[in-house]
Amino acid sequence: LDWNGTIIPELKEIVGEENVVNHIIDLYVYSRDASIDTGWPAAVAFANTTDEVSKIVKLANKHGFSIIPRGAGSNVCGGVIPAKGDCLILVLARMNKVVNLDLENFIVTVEPGIVCLDLNTYLAPHGFYFPPDPASDKACTLGGMINNNSGGIRAVKYGVTENWVMGLEVVLSDGTIINIGNKAIKYVCGYDLVSLFVGSEGTLGIVTKAMLKIQPLPEIRLVASGYFNSAFEAGKCVREIIRRGFDPSGTEIMDYKTLKAVEEYSGKVKFPECGAVVLVELDGNKDDVEMRLDRLDLAFKEMGAIETAVARDAKTCEEVWAARKAAFPALTLRRPTARMEDVSVPLENLPVMFQKIDEVSAKNGIEIATFGHAGDGNLHPILLWDERDPDQHRRALQTLVDLWHAAIDLEGTVTGEHGIGVSKLMMMPVEHEAAVLELTKKIKHAFDPNNVLCPGHVIPIPGQRIDILEDVS
Amino acid sequence: LDWNGTIIPELKEIVGEENVVNHIIDLYVYSRDASIDTGWPAAVAFANTTDEVSKIVKLANKHGFSIIPRGAGSNVCGGVIPAKGDCLILVLARMNKVVNLDLENFIVTVEPGIVCLDLNTYLAPHGFYFPPDPASDKACTLGGMINNNSGGIRAVKYGVTENWVMGLEVVLSDGTIINIGNKAIKYVCGYDLVSLFVGSEGTLGIVTKAMLKIQPLPEIRLVASGYFNSAFEAGKCVREIIRRGFDPSGTEIMDYKTLKAVEEYSGKVKFPECGAVVLVELDGNKDDVEMRLDRLDLAFKEMGAIETAVARDAKTCEEVWAARKAAFPALTLRRPTARMEDVSVPLENLPVMFQKIDEVSAKNGIEIATFGHAGDGNLHPILLWDERDPDQHRRALQTLVDLWHAAIDLEGTVTGEHGIGVSKLMMMPVEHEAAVLELTKKIKHAFDPNNVLCPGHVIPIPGQRIDILEDVS
Repeated sequence: LDWNGTIIPELKEIVGEENVVNHIIDLYVYSRDASIDTGWPAAVAFANTTDEVSKIVKLANKHGFSIIPRGAGSNVCGGVIPAKGDCLILVLARMNKVVNLDLENFIVTVEPGIVCLDLNTYLAPHGFYFPPDPASDKACTLGGMINNNSGGIRAVKYGVTENWVMGLEVVLSDGTIINIGNKAIKYVCGYDLVSLFVGSEGTLGIVTKAMLKIQPLPEIRLVASGYFNSAFEAGKCVREIIRRGFDPSGTEIMDYKTLKAVEEYSGKVKFPECGAVVLVELDGNKDDVEMRLDRLDLAFKEMGAIETAVARDAKTCEEVWAARKAAFPALTLRRPTARMEDVSVPLENLPVMFQKIDEVSAKNGIEIATFGHAGDGNLHPILLWDERDPDQHRRALQTLVDLWHAAIDLEGTVTGEHGIGVSKLMMMPVEHEAAVLELTKKIKHAFDPNNVLCPGHVIPIPGQRIDILEDVS
Repeated sequence: LDWNGTIIPELKEIVGEENVVNHIIDLYVYSRDASIDTGWPAAVAFANTTDEVSKIVKLANKHGFSIIPRGAGSNVCGGVIPAKGDCLILVLARMNKVVNLDLENFIVTVEPGIVCLDLNTYLAPHGFYFPPDPASDKACTLGGMINNNSGGIRAVKYGVTENWVMGLEVVLSDGTIINIGNKAIKYVCGYDLVSLFVGSEGTLGIVTKAMLKIQPLPEIRLVASGYFNSAFEAGKCVREIIRRGFDPSGTEIMDYKTLKAVEEYSGKVKFPECGAVVLVELDGNKDDVEMRLDRLDLAFKEMGAIETAVARDAKTCEEVWAARKAAFPALTLRRPTARMEDVSVPLENLPVMFQKIDEVSAKNGIEIATFGHAGDGNLHPILLWDERDPDQHRRALQTLVDLWHAAIDLEGTVTGEHGIGVSKLMMMPVEHEAAVLELTKKIKHAFDPNNVLCPGHVIPIPGQRIDILEDVS
């Protein structure tokens, strides 16, 4: 395609001279996301309005290039990098306004580029918040959260992004702008198109506006911690806490290696010697939360905790969550390469999943530290290695594949909240029956017959190499 | 088609001689559901296994007949009656077993014919329940709840059926049996096909098994009632209760006419003179619920309640809910014809919706009694008339159309939890943009290219009359 002579000038006409870049340095920046995969775009455009997005999609159809929408680029599965050439990265990060706050109906309408934490900072003075809370909430955009159906710490009580999206404005693959959903909380007029777009990773349409349900802030949120001899025991404890009806708004686990990394990273936090910690947040009315917190502390001890701690004020709770959210950044500093995984298993199999992680780590000689949203059965094992060392790299990729299979063998999935992108394509046929893959392709074809949007994501394109071991074995 | 000579014998070979009927009396029974619409099937078959369902779907493709799956037949939108000839009603009510109870993972797997209340009766001794609770829970089947994405009283806190379905076994339109979803709570491997089937009213596939998330029973559930001078005031009160973070597990309204009907029906219940009652259920730990119940009672008074009542024990609460669930049966006795509507509006517009209902009723001279799930903005106005009187019937249908438009004018929908079926097809193009209808058709075509499943439901077929006023105006 003639990018320099035709496409780029036409793109510049749509979004303005300064909003299209294709210098090699720019392209390098947008050839990566937070995964370990890479892919080179032909150009990068920054959109400011839905109308611009629609025009660009029409241009893509005219010239035959493809488009990948991108927010903060914090995707960890290669979800915002090209899988083939002639691809435009369409950055929506500047479309970051609150369009409307409707406090009468507990609804906020936003553009897709708004950062999750910024939305909550905006809502707080009104006494509301948006519950889904990825650990990357300081960076990740709502558009990305919608495309990936992101979860987070509070998902154990409040569900994932899909549960909070009431309506969407979407630019379809031919440039048509549609509005779906309704301001009524319950709504069954026709198929649930909103839930189909949520989690479709940009392959079915480009989300340009979202109508979100918001929640009154609870009177109080407090956290109790239980330190256990092993991640196995910690996993059992979490299941029991759910079963007993504690109704926690967060149930996190960090293993020993993660705790050590956080200690080093922070330079001041000091954890007790243990195999793993369970962090449980309770939210609600003050008296009730304090009563349940005491019960929880007792329950930890009953279940064999070697030490417990209760954070009884907001400041201490913030410190606990800051430590948890520092886990990934802390671990990335330990080795040149860090890959965050996202396995999710039925609660019963959570303790065994920790054992499998250890086995896979030992077998391949690759260090893994694990934390995650244990109450959902969703763990983030972090693989640490040096990708410049071919032997280590080969072993690391084998470790990934072994981990994925372990999760599936335990009746789980390779992805609880991060998605497939280009990184996990090889596991789609392992998790899904052939007829289900066929149905997935039919949906994609119905929405995007010319494969304009994110080709090679979620569904492979002909010739695409999906076996991550192919290069190295 | 040759039903008697070919199709019926072949059906009998699949499900057994006694499980296929086509006597005129049988067909009459299955030509109706709980709506006011009718449609004649060619035959009725009762399936006992997924394999039988698959074989019947293959037979339908071979001979060119269509299929409508049916559970209890309690659909109120013509969702289980034929919209065209040569249609088989496939009754799944006998596939009503619990396939597996997995208490380790808080999951129950059921066949689609199981009745909602039966499921909860089964779960109760284990300390669990399935939260979605249509008022028809004594009759309605899980398959119907899934097809319609049913809500109910607890939806205000626990969401609708979609939020509790983790996986499905579905027979596709060509007879292929697929399994979708995962036992992991969080799951984003590919498109959310489960949410697409849920609420698709049987038009995309036939659900033959469902893996459901279940919830530990709360320690206690108690109900407070506030009696107000008008439904308008009651509507305002409900919104305020949500805003103040009471986190109710039920927020129902019944208007004066409904209360009078329930009094007559029960013969013993007696309500205070009022315009409407608000019933609020709180669930959770005993101490907390009791404390919040007292606060709620005060809040009712603050908001102008002319009388309040607090049910402090399980028996009294049951009586309150029995009265609420008697509302529809009680009203149906008042006139020969009763039609339950399902409008849903943003919370802010709930009080105004009550006024619109009164206006529409007065304009057309048709009695309407209203109750519903006010905390979701979802109301069930019940239209009462005598359909044998042509003039009344014409005015009743006009009332329906007026009601629907009123809900849409208030930024709501014609259906919060009952669906479109054949009864509300005319409103699909009013609620949806043309491009959205087009997308809906594309999905249907991708899943069911030969229109084997529920033709003329949700999406009209060529020549289908969808304007309910056409015959009578």
